[in-house]
Amino acid sequence: MVKVEKAMTMLFETKTVGEHPWRTGTLNLPRGPVATPVFMPVGTQATVKTLSVDEIKAIGAQLILANTYHLHLRPGEAMIARRGGLHGFMHWDGSILTDSGGFQVFSMSDIRTITEEGVEFRSHLDGSKHKLTPETVVAIQLQLGSDIMMPLDVCTGLPATRDTVAAAMQRSLRWLARARQVERPDGRFLFGIVQGGLEDDLRRESAAGTVALDCDGYSIGGLSVGEAKEDMLRTLEVTVPCLPADKPRYLMGVGTPPDLWYGVARGVDMFDCVLPTRNARNGQVFTPQGPMNIGRLEFAEDDNPIDATCDCYTCRTHSRSYVRHLLRAGEMLGKRLTSIHNLRFMVRTIERIRAAIDSGTFQAEHDTFLREYLRR
Amino acid sequence: MVKVEKAMTMLFETKTVGEHPWRTGTLNLPRGPVATPVFMPVGTQATVKTLSVDEIKAIGAQLILANTYHLHLRPGEAMIARRGGLHGFMHWDGSILTDSGGFQVFSMSDIRTITEEGVEFRSHLDGSKHKLTPETVVAIQLQLGSDIMMPLDVCTGLPATRDTVAAAMQRSLRWLARARQVERPDGRFLFGIVQGGLEDDLRRESAAGTVALDCDGYSIGGLSVGEAKEDMLRTLEVTVPCLPADKPRYLMGVGTPPDLWYGVARGVDMFDCVLPTRNARNGQVFTPQGPMNIGRLEFAEDDNPIDATCDCYTCRTHSRSYVRHLLRAGEMLGKRLTSIHNLRFMVRTIERIRAAIDSGTFQAEHDTFLREYLRR
Repeated sequence: MVKVEKAMTMLFETKTVGEHPWRTGTLNLPRGPVATPVFMPVGTQATVKTLSVDEIKAIGAQLILANTYHLHLRPGEAMIARRGGLHGFMHWDGSILTDSGGFQVFSMSDIRTITEEGVEFRSHLDGSKHKLTPETVVAIQLQLGSDIMMPLDVCTGLPATRDTVAAAMQRSLRWLARARQVERPDGRFLFGIVQGGLEDDLRRESAAGTVALDCDGYSIGGLSVGEAKEDMLRTLEVTVPCLPADKPRYLMGVGTPPDLWYGVARGVDMFDCVLPTRNARNGQVFTPQGPMNIGRLEFAEDDNPIDATCDCYTCRTHSRSYVRHLLRAGEMLGKRLTSIHNLRFMVRTIERIRAAIDSGTFQAEHDTFLREYLRR
Repeated sequence: MVKVEKAMTMLFETKTVGEHPWRTGTLNLPRGPVATPVFMPVGTQATVKTLSVDEIKAIGAQLILANTYHLHLRPGEAMIARRGGLHGFMHWDGSILTDSGGFQVFSMSDIRTITEEGVEFRSHLDGSKHKLTPETVVAIQLQLGSDIMMPLDVCTGLPATRDTVAAAMQRSLRWLARARQVERPDGRFLFGIVQGGLEDDLRRESAAGTVALDCDGYSIGGLSVGEAKEDMLRTLEVTVPCLPADKPRYLMGVGTPPDLWYGVARGVDMFDCVLPTRNARNGQVFTPQGPMNIGRLEFAEDDNPIDATCDCYTCRTHSRSYVRHLLRAGEMLGKRLTSIHNLRFMVRTIERIRAAIDSGTFQAEHDTFLREYLRR
């Protein structure tokens, strides 16, 4: 292994670089360093659903994600800026990454017109007209006070023709070039997003074009949108080698606990996903032996914690029996307790991954985790 | 003032007794003493809606209420008994009072038949048939592990004829006599409930009949069900003097912050109400200057806490602006933050009442609070 020295002004320092794709590192962000690989809980509307900021901190998260689309529509970036940005508004002293809002515009809004200039759409809340351009999306995120920003890109649903995917990817590159032109203060980082669907050559072309624009980090978009797991992993294997080793790599919207191992094994440094909290609210909780539905009758009188190996508030305090009762009774505390557990499970998994990389046992631990979790 | 000495085996010790009806005291419960006057947060389904047990403790509550009707139907008292009762089930080491379920049977269930033996009804959840009798209601509460139990009574809605009210009151007295016959372990207290609607003579008759059965404490039921405030207060003034000074008096289902002052002024020691949490979830928050709706546009950019004089988690951490955003966005954290504040407001109000009684300034503080709260 080679120790790579970097100046502190760089966003990213890799701690270990070897023959294999996986590595640990540090994101040097204004509010403190963040160890990678990292899993980011999603706080769509300036709140990680059901959790207080103290609880977010207690589960071990230092970097969370917020959604530009939702916050732009309500309450609006101008009023958030007047509160000292998202950090001040939600009283969160950790770091914040924001997405560009592109994914939500393309998946949630009612009407849209995409032109070379940007995208026009109607709010899913009240039908009001809005327009986002590569420039305004950076401006909005600057107002939100994000530590790490994403550029506007064109998201194509699956299935899509190769021509559609190629055109969207090319336009996303032109939009990224425009986004890079927006003046930013020091310490406000802007990533590029690699697109190209499941077409290997388009992914390579997108990666090359994005890297040519010299971004602070590289996101891999358009995955985990319904494609087969093998397709996602192959696309990662094609894309990651096209990205520079000294910049962080972010696999957007992924994923499950196994996905953390799959992604890191292929060189990914950053993850986010709503799945741990969304599934938690529906009663699906993670355990080392795989996910389980706490609503099942077999847990009605089970006095064990959800996961006996877990150190989260829920597992230290409450039984499966009580959590099951709360969810069945429609009580919010139930959703909160399962959310705390699932997020802590994700953070503990990523902590275990970092420790395994640093001790040189990643491959073995990868296999052990997956064997136990997938029960095979 | 006369200092009244009691043996520790008594449920209630009054600390101060004077010419006036208000007094402070202590409920000597198995899990520790509870200072009176006391406000009990309502944990209908074995959870104070949106709050963790740590948060219930942090707002200063030592005694909470749970609902026999709801817990009997789901998850059932037998399984709760196997978890060590409600305390073990919900991991609450404070004290618990349970109602009899009567109020819910008469207000929520679909079909019912009332006989001298008891009441038959269908569950509001699944239509299943259930029967409660004065004896089974005590047995259920013994299984729940309640520290303070209520007897089954007949609740009449308003308006009701004098004959209906009288008959219900008489039957409630016969049911109480049966409930008192159920064997109970030491330290498991059973109150009587005074009924009689708004008929002064029926209230006096009910109080005399209830006191004759020598209960551990006396509840005043059938109030705050839609009658005028003056009627409630007059009924209190009629009823309380009929109750023994050395037993606690509990005004069921009451009420607002002013109601705490009104009730204590008339000799009440215990209160419970869902209003502080229910209104909180709808955005109504309490302040010393009266309730306010945090959803109002005027609070959109208000960086002050809900109540600058409040020491609760919400007021120490978050702004009106952020809480308003969360509620508008439908985020559960918003309901939780307002619930924490309103419950802490109730507990702080009752703490202020106790301090005022002990320092001999109750009447002056009563007037000051109401003048400021009612803005008159």
